[in-house]
Amino acid sequence: MRSPSPTSTDPLDSHPALIPHYGAGHRLCPVTNTQLTLVLSQEREIDLVELEQLCDAVGWSRRPLRRVRKALEHSLLRVGLWRHDARMPRLVGFARCTGDGVAEATVWDVAVHPRYQGTGLGKHLMVYVLDQLRAMEVERVSLFADPGVVDFYANQGWELEPMQRRCAFWYSP
Amino acid sequence: MRSPSPTSTDPLDSHPALIPHYGAGHRLCPVTNTQLTLVLSQEREIDLVELEQLCDAVGWSRRPLRRVRKALEHSLLRVGLWRHDARMPRLVGFARCTGDGVAEATVWDVAVHPRYQGTGLGKHLMVYVLDQLRAMEVERVSLFADPGVVDFYANQGWELEPMQRRCAFWYSP
Repeated sequence: MRSPSPTSTDPLDSHPALIPHYGAGHRLCPVTNTQLTLVLSQEREIDLVELEQLCDAVGWSRRPLRRVRKALEHSLLRVGLWRHDARMPRLVGFARCTGDGVAEATVWDVAVHPRYQGTGLGKHLMVYVLDQLRAMEVERVSLFADPGVVDFYANQGWELEPMQRRCAFWYSP
Repeated sequence: MRSPSPTSTDPLDSHPALIPHYGAGHRLCPVTNTQLTLVLSQEREIDLVELEQLCDAVGWSRRPLRRVRKALEHSLLRVGLWRHDARMPRLVGFARCTGDGVAEATVWDVAVHPRYQGTGLGKHLMVYVLDQLRAMEVERVSLFADPGVVDFYANQGWELEPMQRRCAFWYSP
């Protein structure tokens, strides 16, 4: 099966033929290009080399792969966005969360490949992330927004610095 | 052994007699009251009822104990501050971190019992937390500071909103 209906009118749709690739909890992203199938999944394993290529593409600094592996293993949630191909799906988006899975989760490393930006995929990615956290019954989700993406999050209902709360960072020497 | 030297001149000191109670990595807090021994430890298990009493004392809302238990289990680090007594140590301070143990850790729920506030214990608690995270080789530690404690963290070298980064929260409906 190479082409599950990418023109589904229900953006929350999944496709049975994609389950072997992405797990039962995957979600198709609505796309206008009918040649394209874009799939969100927290079940499909993230290939570390592909993730590094994605991070390169968005301009993030590299980390040793063994440290990336450990960070992913210790994350509460890892979500990939793949351009589907039955033989070689390609990772074009990513996000992960740390947290206790109860009271708190924090979103990190939200990335969409530049070639796929500007079509609402970042928003679909965030909706999918929050749906997974909601299913875990996490009470509160937090993130740190760089100036360029503050509006992106505010437009999706994130509260900026509620109660004048400010963020603080400590960097390892 | 009821009274290990509480007047140690080295605030980083530990005491062999306290190891059975608090583990080898405990740290004594310097105190002026020689009747008092205050001990930081990430090894001694946190009693959930005691933690609830501490949270009540600082005015935090309660959570079901089973959810608190799960949140602690899924935390990267749990630190208690105890007023030492060989028969019944008393929890008078607390902090915990979530995170991946590699790139990120986030500090939550920093509390010192009101009766013990104002003597620098909060600072000792934070120094101990950061020392544990440094030992794990965590690259960056973050927290969300309420208006009343922004100066507390800023004075300890935390960078507030570096690069105009802002915090955002999403609350589960």
